[in-house]
Amino acid sequence: MTERLVVIGGDAAGMSAASQARRRRNSDDLIIDVFEMTQRVSYSACGEPYYISGDVPNIEQLIARTPAQFGQQDITVHLGNTVTEIDTDSRTITVLNGRDSRVVAFDQLVYATGARPVRPPIEGLDLAGVFHLKTLDDAEAIKSAAAGAKSAVVVGGGYIGLEMAEAFHVRGITTTLVTSGAVVMNRSIDEDLGAIVTAGMRERGIDVRPGHRVNCLADQQGHVRGIQLDGGVLGADIVVLALGTRPVSELAAEAGIRIGPTGAVAVDNRQRTSVEGIWSAGDCAEALHRITGRPANVHLGTVANKQGRVAGINIGGDDATFPGILGTAITKVLDIEIARTGLSQSEAESAGIEAVTATTESTTMAGYWPESTEMTLKVTAERRTGRMLGAQIVGGRSAGKRIDTLATGIWNEMDGLAFSMMDLSYAPPFSGTWDPVLIAARRAYERAM
Amino acid sequence: MTERLVVIGGDAAGMSAASQARRRRNSDDLIIDVFEMTQRVSYSACGEPYYISGDVPNIEQLIARTPAQFGQQDITVHLGNTVTEIDTDSRTITVLNGRDSRVVAFDQLVYATGARPVRPPIEGLDLAGVFHLKTLDDAEAIKSAAAGAKSAVVVGGGYIGLEMAEAFHVRGITTTLVTSGAVVMNRSIDEDLGAIVTAGMRERGIDVRPGHRVNCLADQQGHVRGIQLDGGVLGADIVVLALGTRPVSELAAEAGIRIGPTGAVAVDNRQRTSVEGIWSAGDCAEALHRITGRPANVHLGTVANKQGRVAGINIGGDDATFPGILGTAITKVLDIEIARTGLSQSEAESAGIEAVTATTESTTMAGYWPESTEMTLKVTAERRTGRMLGAQIVGGRSAGKRIDTLATGIWNEMDGLAFSMMDLSYAPPFSGTWDPVLIAARRAYERAM
Repeated sequence: MTERLVVIGGDAAGMSAASQARRRRNSDDLIIDVFEMTQRVSYSACGEPYYISGDVPNIEQLIARTPAQFGQQDITVHLGNTVTEIDTDSRTITVLNGRDSRVVAFDQLVYATGARPVRPPIEGLDLAGVFHLKTLDDAEAIKSAAAGAKSAVVVGGGYIGLEMAEAFHVRGITTTLVTSGAVVMNRSIDEDLGAIVTAGMRERGIDVRPGHRVNCLADQQGHVRGIQLDGGVLGADIVVLALGTRPVSELAAEAGIRIGPTGAVAVDNRQRTSVEGIWSAGDCAEALHRITGRPANVHLGTVANKQGRVAGINIGGDDATFPGILGTAITKVLDIEIARTGLSQSEAESAGIEAVTATTESTTMAGYWPESTEMTLKVTAERRTGRMLGAQIVGGRSAGKRIDTLATGIWNEMDGLAFSMMDLSYAPPFSGTWDPVLIAARRAYERAM
Repeated sequence: MTERLVVIGGDAAGMSAASQARRRRNSDDLIIDVFEMTQRVSYSACGEPYYISGDVPNIEQLIARTPAQFGQQDITVHLGNTVTEIDTDSRTITVLNGRDSRVVAFDQLVYATGARPVRPPIEGLDLAGVFHLKTLDDAEAIKSAAAGAKSAVVVGGGYIGLEMAEAFHVRGITTTLVTSGAVVMNRSIDEDLGAIVTAGMRERGIDVRPGHRVNCLADQQGHVRGIQLDGGVLGADIVVLALGTRPVSELAAEAGIRIGPTGAVAVDNRQRTSVEGIWSAGDCAEALHRITGRPANVHLGTVANKQGRVAGINIGGDDATFPGILGTAITKVLDIEIARTGLSQSEAESAGIEAVTATTESTTMAGYWPESTEMTLKVTAERRTGRMLGAQIVGGRSAGKRIDTLATGIWNEMDGLAFSMMDLSYAPPFSGTWDPVLIAARRAYERAM
């Protein structure tokens, strides 16, 4: 009997699931319909700041695959279709397309609705010139507005905030980043590293205003003219709010699908939800954190792709498991690279793990190599065992991707001493003889023991 | 009773051993004498090509620590002192300094004589303008000769050969690299990857002549004027022979210290030789290959530093073990990065392991990122288990250091599927959503199973 797979949400998780299912089951066996509320599927949200900056000239470059390409694979993509209800008893969804509503039956369903930007409870969010960045439409609107802007304010000191500040700055727009934290990136890396990034941004000409909450947006005839801080109005032609994202889980919750403690959809390691035949993957779903052993909810394309793949393989009849996350992430602001994985000391302690952290100042390449720059590494290890729990890196070019080596060691539950003796690569244009990750791991071990 | 530690050879392994021993035992307990036949200790041989190229302007930049700095640590460095004999019965060494010979007693001895360049049995090696590169003196002599040279030939397609070809090329010298292999780097990476490097070098203006053995060096009044190939004379003002290096183990062999199957000094995992109280570390010593389980002998600063450290910690009374190697290495020629770790398929099969290899073509960063370049990854895995055995990378900037992530996975005996699901970092300026190492590992796994 032919089954129907309905996928809600056509970005990384949903389309990965659809593709993997299709590879294993042909259209006589499985009909696949994807319902996407925007006009595009399968795009790189992470690339949007670089489209706005001009590094990526054409928005089409951010689109991995088009609906037509999915169509050739017998995956039907319904654009501009918003799913308004999931009925788990009748196994149907209700879909809204403009004013038309219809009911579609499913046998299997992948819930991949993603995340949405946090909208703070302040006045003026609907003024012209005020943006969130999520979809390609958002990116196009911001780029268009930026073309005529002389000054920009980015509110939020996280990944998107930094990337948007960079984008405006490289376009020659006077840019201010406002954050409520004491430094930028304070939810991802420790404050001492955040301070290095904050200072580096200022040196490079991006004004950073930490410790500020935005009260409201200043208005001039329906167009934003700045943001209201405690100290007065900070003028801007364009304002981007980058205050984080939240999982879109309401539709699932209303359908009786279990929501986990993070507010995202609870899933097992095969991406099954609490309802038979309903799967979830991506930003809207939880993921097991390998170190805390608890569910987490991160909004990263890496996790969405992997979870979607796992769901699709299982729907396809093969067997796949998602092994969990470490919360590995990387970004850059201009030439400053920032990366992290695993737990910081305070995160470890919140999870009930006694931990220590060692900071190592080093250089990205041999100290005498002309392109070498400063790099700071922090490694957190479990007290008494020396097991590595997490790492953070801030530095110049080539600093950040070293996080993958640390993540691989942490993934394998290595202690810092064992890690420090690994056979890693060295040549002067690439590192010191002891790659700094080795030294950083050893120092954390020594402190832990 | 005060003991005397004698260290033969004052570069990475010897000085690491001396420093670590000294940290644990003061000079009332342990006298440390280092005998070094050249005029310098503790320098970066790996940095020499970049001193010759001009990337590193001053030779002092390549010196990590001076004899005076070691002196402050109560480590006495005897420069220009060649050890001519080790007597394991009387526990003395004979040291030659100019024409003066003396006998020095020891309680502990670290044999860290390093490696020497292979001198091929061809005529003309002593002509002016013909060089090997090993010591800082060699580097100074080559740089001095290069200042007046218009054309250079580098013989040898390995690490030093490529680095020297780059050095001459960036100095504006017409440069030809001659190798007996079908492509460059054929002892480190597979021929298909070596072909990419060979083509890349040619595109960038370095002439590469593969498949050539050098018969002799052409002479003009005592100065080299080129090399004699089968097809005639290839003219050059300067010739560097980079035909590999061999461990300096004769002195140890003559003393009855056991030499292993590789021709280097046999050691256990604490760096002990077959003679009580005599230790060995670095290029002259063997190292356990973690995958083959057999002794290997690699000439790399990474291994020398680690082994010297282990010897010194043990001499110092603490306990350290050297966990073995994977043969991880990296270099670059201009903007082409080359890295490898573990076993290739043929190396695996020589070691009796049935293996498969998958090749993955990818890009260093997101495909749409303007600085992204091509990158080719090969991963070798054990047939039927999918356990990763080795990896090779050739690509543009940021390609090479990815080998460390693969090396860490291989070190931990991960199979390619488990590796492929790890939580590695992603942002468009750094990689695709699935870092190419993940994809390459999965493909090797799929081929293996």
